[in-house]
Amino acid sequence: MTVDKTLLRALRGEALPRPPIWLMRQAGRYLPEYRAVRQEAGSFLDLCFSPELAAEVTLQPIRRYGFDAAILFSDILVVPHAMGQSVRFEEGVGPRLEPLKERRDIDALQVEGVVERLAPVMETLRLLRRGLPQEVTLIGFAGAPWTVASYMVEGGSSRDFALVKGWAYRDPEGFQALIDRLVAATVAYLDAQVVAGAEVIQLFDSWASALPSGILERWSLRPMRAIAEAIKARHPGIPVILFPRGVGVAYEDFARAGGAEGLSLDSGVRPAWAKEILSPQVTVQGNLDPILLVSGGEAMRAEARAICAALEGRPHIFNLGHGIVPQTPPDHVAELVSIVRGAEA
Amino acid sequence: MTVDKTLLRALRGEALPRPPIWLMRQAGRYLPEYRAVRQEAGSFLDLCFSPELAAEVTLQPIRRYGFDAAILFSDILVVPHAMGQSVRFEEGVGPRLEPLKERRDIDALQVEGVVERLAPVMETLRLLRRGLPQEVTLIGFAGAPWTVASYMVEGGSSRDFALVKGWAYRDPEGFQALIDRLVAATVAYLDAQVVAGAEVIQLFDSWASALPSGILERWSLRPMRAIAEAIKARHPGIPVILFPRGVGVAYEDFARAGGAEGLSLDSGVRPAWAKEILSPQVTVQGNLDPILLVSGGEAMRAEARAICAALEGRPHIFNLGHGIVPQTPPDHVAELVSIVRGAEA
Repeated sequence: MTVDKTLLRALRGEALPRPPIWLMRQAGRYLPEYRAVRQEAGSFLDLCFSPELAAEVTLQPIRRYGFDAAILFSDILVVPHAMGQSVRFEEGVGPRLEPLKERRDIDALQVEGVVERLAPVMETLRLLRRGLPQEVTLIGFAGAPWTVASYMVEGGSSRDFALVKGWAYRDPEGFQALIDRLVAATVAYLDAQVVAGAEVIQLFDSWASALPSGILERWSLRPMRAIAEAIKARHPGIPVILFPRGVGVAYEDFARAGGAEGLSLDSGVRPAWAKEILSPQVTVQGNLDPILLVSGGEAMRAEARAICAALEGRPHIFNLGHGIVPQTPPDHVAELVSIVRGAEA
Repeated sequence: MTVDKTLLRALRGEALPRPPIWLMRQAGRYLPEYRAVRQEAGSFLDLCFSPELAAEVTLQPIRRYGFDAAILFSDILVVPHAMGQSVRFEEGVGPRLEPLKERRDIDALQVEGVVERLAPVMETLRLLRRGLPQEVTLIGFAGAPWTVASYMVEGGSSRDFALVKGWAYRDPEGFQALIDRLVAATVAYLDAQVVAGAEVIQLFDSWASALPSGILERWSLRPMRAIAEAIKARHPGIPVILFPRGVGVAYEDFARAGGAEGLSLDSGVRPAWAKEILSPQVTVQGNLDPILLVSGGEAMRAEARAICAALEGRPHIFNLGHGIVPQTPPDHVAELVSIVRGAEA
């Protein structure tokens, strides 16, 4: 008999008395045990591609806090790396890619063979399925095509997204070719993640906020829906969570037309608005400000309780509005978990 | 007899057949004539505090494009500078401030004397009132307290706003003292701007997007409304435009309760949503993506027309969703103006 995991129940639309909880970037630099593994791993990509180490850091926050879900430790930029683009991570700077500049750079990207080149990630997932407590759900993930494309064209993080938006405006057909390749590669990659043991898929569109309203549907919503539908066609019953960060009012469109069971809200969204406006078919996830987890104390406790109260009676997964930041005191995370579970004094 | 300026008519609630147009950061590095003046001015703050030069760069885009409004050339960080904080601008890096770290740093900030120390700005405004064509409206401005406070506490631009939000969470009373001082200094400064000739005031809350929904009202909406109300109490009839960038659904709150005539929308807001949802009492301003102005062409033309069409029949000021970026071709700006005025081929 399989255990009825709380995260899967919430994603099937069940409003639980206490929401399940996991936190974006729950495996990471704020944990001393992560920093110890990170130090012995060589480069950041080496860590992503070392199944034993990647599985170990994925499990660390589960052991420490007993979260309801574990999310594969990896990075959204392993996909362009597997497509043949040069990707490296500079300490204290962030990702650096050899930027795509013209159509032939797009045409040179390989979709075939992506899964083979990402085989270590699938090995990590297999190790995790064996190593996780049976009540903990295993989440696989990928970057959404728009966000991944923005790194591929900008060559790293960007302030104004001028290069990638400029391309999309000037040459929408060429840019569509890039997005289509990313959709194909991402579907193949996530399909393999599910085969290897992922039970839920989350798509991160961290830079959806950079898209003006007129092109948000084309470059963010449609590619994410295409991926969600393809995964469901191959694996009926696998829930998908979309995280189009910073889209404001357009969260409504993603709830209605995103083709996913879950929608992760950034901290700018009022939970009461989400409850009133978003399709009741979608399970909302979120949305505590990660900086409240740094400062902790009564402000954190009050806001965590307010989020749970505002979303009571509707399917809800407790999470942050964005990833944990490195300066977060680990004790604050423990306190948050006990508050959400209603176990604190 | 005074000319009935189009910008003022729009801000009084008139839906004009063609919206008036001006663009945020219309005086700036994309213009060769600006770069020429900038080079001879010494530091960036020297330029802000040289009335003849600041007036000259304010007038440059008016001469070139015939915008309906000129906005004072200055910077939001002249206020902390005038309050006694060390502020400098590093070429290619951005602003650098000696960050506020504890309560006594806040208590040391001076509100008295701010207007005297900003006297050159008022001289710029007086020069502009004499130098501007009579149909062009003169806009004064200041940063909103939250955004200015974020620079004062972070010491510059920030990725995650951890220091300033941490302060607001940990010590809301202390942080309120900083906001209160900024409100007082900003009211005195804007009062003097109006006396010197500003006909409209815009408040820029560029980093309102960093505020989660639970504290957006306290740190963004309320201080901006306090400033707007104080200016109106002293100068009845002076319209105020609020620009709480990136607040998504909460634009509705600012339209209803912001105490201002105008609301400037970032590019993430769908104009049709704005027309349907925002209080009809408020004049909406915006919201073309500045990157469309870089790429130009049919995409820019179509989107500019779509914005005008979506907001037809309601008071509207055409603008961007954010400031012009330096790589913008000046010819694209000319084409945009002629499209909005309906004069293009």
